[in-house]
Amino acid sequence: MTQPLRIAIAGLGTVGAGTLKLLQANGAAIAARCGRSLKVCAVAARERSKDRGVDLGGVAWFDDPVAMAARADVDVVVELIGGAEGVARKTVEAALARKVHVVTANKALLAHHGVDLAKVAEAAGLTLGYEAAVAGGIPIIKALREGLAGNTIRRITGILNGTCNYILSTMRATGRDFADVLKEAQDLGYAEVDPAFDIDGTDAAHKLAILTSVAFGTQVDIKSVHIEGIRHISSLDIQYAEEFGFRIKLLGLAERDEKSGGIVQRVYPCLIKPDAPLAGAEGVVNAIVAEGDFVGKSVYEGRGAGAGPTASAVVADLMDIAAGRRVPTFGIPATELKALATVPVDQHVGEYYVRLRVVDRPGVFADIAGAFRDEGVSMESVLQRGRSEKSNVNVVIITHETQESNLLRALKRLQANAALLEPPHMMRIEDLA
Amino acid sequence: MTQPLRIAIAGLGTVGAGTLKLLQANGAAIAARCGRSLKVCAVAARERSKDRGVDLGGVAWFDDPVAMAARADVDVVVELIGGAEGVARKTVEAALARKVHVVTANKALLAHHGVDLAKVAEAAGLTLGYEAAVAGGIPIIKALREGLAGNTIRRITGILNGTCNYILSTMRATGRDFADVLKEAQDLGYAEVDPAFDIDGTDAAHKLAILTSVAFGTQVDIKSVHIEGIRHISSLDIQYAEEFGFRIKLLGLAERDEKSGGIVQRVYPCLIKPDAPLAGAEGVVNAIVAEGDFVGKSVYEGRGAGAGPTASAVVADLMDIAAGRRVPTFGIPATELKALATVPVDQHVGEYYVRLRVVDRPGVFADIAGAFRDEGVSMESVLQRGRSEKSNVNVVIITHETQESNLLRALKRLQANAALLEPPHMMRIEDLA
Repeated sequence: MTQPLRIAIAGLGTVGAGTLKLLQANGAAIAARCGRSLKVCAVAARERSKDRGVDLGGVAWFDDPVAMAARADVDVVVELIGGAEGVARKTVEAALARKVHVVTANKALLAHHGVDLAKVAEAAGLTLGYEAAVAGGIPIIKALREGLAGNTIRRITGILNGTCNYILSTMRATGRDFADVLKEAQDLGYAEVDPAFDIDGTDAAHKLAILTSVAFGTQVDIKSVHIEGIRHISSLDIQYAEEFGFRIKLLGLAERDEKSGGIVQRVYPCLIKPDAPLAGAEGVVNAIVAEGDFVGKSVYEGRGAGAGPTASAVVADLMDIAAGRRVPTFGIPATELKALATVPVDQHVGEYYVRLRVVDRPGVFADIAGAFRDEGVSMESVLQRGRSEKSNVNVVIITHETQESNLLRALKRLQANAALLEPPHMMRIEDLA
Repeated sequence: MTQPLRIAIAGLGTVGAGTLKLLQANGAAIAARCGRSLKVCAVAARERSKDRGVDLGGVAWFDDPVAMAARADVDVVVELIGGAEGVARKTVEAALARKVHVVTANKALLAHHGVDLAKVAEAAGLTLGYEAAVAGGIPIIKALREGLAGNTIRRITGILNGTCNYILSTMRATGRDFADVLKEAQDLGYAEVDPAFDIDGTDAAHKLAILTSVAFGTQVDIKSVHIEGIRHISSLDIQYAEEFGFRIKLLGLAERDEKSGGIVQRVYPCLIKPDAPLAGAEGVVNAIVAEGDFVGKSVYEGRGAGAGPTASAVVADLMDIAAGRRVPTFGIPATELKALATVPVDQHVGEYYVRLRVVDRPGVFADIAGAFRDEGVSMESVLQRGRSEKSNVNVVIITHETQESNLLRALKRLQANAALLEPPHMMRIEDLA
């Protein structure tokens, strides 16, 4: 058996402590699997005295992770600090500069600087592992880079944020409102005190941008992801969606646009059929469908965050390094990744859900129908139920397939209409069959 | 870029032809991903003149796969002949003897001779790849050997045979009987003319035995798999299961028995809750749940058979070989795999579904209740519905948790009872939560 793989861990939050616990619990089996042991030699964190439930005896302590990355005598630095800039980025750069492998759970860093870091790592023959950055409970990076690598991927769709999925699942199950369920999610530790990063879709977008690169051989391009969050979803929308036979999920979707050859990257809440592959994934989970030309649909589901799943993914990357298994960071060498040709979201063609809150007076529905007709959007179903106490009603429309730009023009016309009491609520209907 | 990986393919059925098609369709992207191209240099099959829809120009033809394995100047032999013995086995052995890597989709061969072949391959520094042998549409071997390799696996559960899953799904959806749906499955090409291998559970058992080895670090042990098929499932059972809030699936289960430390391997139809992870997998699919101590439940679903998914898995193995990525065949070196300590199925503890077809006369139910009581099996629910036209009825019982041996003794007592018109129908209820 060769020398142990020497590891430095930067950041001892729940994931860092979880990684130490995993290596202590399963160390012997891990050594048997990769032919050498994994040894944590150094750690860096802020508070040395904090009890993390792990034995740090014999492990060198650093207060400064960048200093650790620059000096510790190790083979790999594991970056578990987080954030696209600052200490996390410096730690990773310091490690790569010293020809030390890097494993990270930092999706923001990868989404913003992934290609540049990959070029540095690959030029030095180093691994930059990031399985933990995307859905820790699902080895999806390995699946895309290796397991399904013979396929041309047509589309990736995923529930990429467990917090949003918990909120939407719970709203549906209980009929409660967004704010109420968000509060509960915060109390349960499923949502941060500042939940914006999750509920506005940023976290899902980071993961989608990384998946897109691996699936399509393009440069990670977070800026071209069209992002909408779930703040505006009301229990009414969920209820109406159910009535029309749909379920609302925050999805990340990346697919090749057949007309332009570009890649569409979108994160938004949308309506899917309850028997679609992702519809059954309820609660704090991530789920991903990869569609390949030979494999067909390959579906993955697991916990997306938390100490255990993330540590599992970190250790998988460490084991690949220990065993000498190498794959280009994003599937093909970083220098060969193509710039991603974006496709504007308003070129999207599909069916739409529209809810309009309007004054309940004669002629309003004719105005709506006229606006849709004038922009060439045809309606598949319309629902307008009895009057509410305030003499205003919700008109809910499911359109036939149309280009998004047409619908947007129809909705713009309506916004000028005094009968409209709120801006239109619009969501895409995604056919995942 | 280094030299192409030179490949010989033994067997040009749908999977062999599919593999050639995949390599022709996606060859450039594959070369970019693994740093060298994959080149088919030789093929062996029976009928040279048959049109397989693939270009075999410049490819050496062999009528005899064993001769090809023994002589063709290649780096890898892909064995797609099938069967645990005979030509398939000889082909693989001939390749390994010549220090040539092997990739195979042959689950029977792996289930029966996997450990011996792995020892030969590993001693020579060769890869014996078999991702295609277990659920081609799901890279589950890679997930278990690498992606989840940091975990201690507690349990593997899976829908491992698409034919059975199609039959059971269709019986449930339509209320039709087994024989009728089997006939349809045969007409659709989902079931073989001789369906025994699928419907009696053998195919699922082969896959389970392989998964068990990878998950638990034990020697592949097909003989200790308890196997029951689905021939005896009637539409009545499916209907009663639904009434009690369950769905019937043919599952493969492998788990460590906490008491004895042994591994239980079982393939049988069982009742699961409709919201359990595997319950939603309907039709001709495979689905697998791996439960690890850190990752929790990691769920996979995809097509299990067919040219495309199987070719996808074959090529993934070839790409690993081309890129020089190596993993011990069953996760740890074959010489270190432990003998599997089996646990008799009658030590299984759980809830049970029992259907008894009995003469409808006074005292019969008292006999049943007495037999259960005498063996210490307590009933959770009982259903006995009105009389059928022939004055015999079905008594359906869901038991509380009990050891299987107790239930078997109770059923044995009842078999002596003249009121019983058929042997008892018994199925386990599996809690997958």
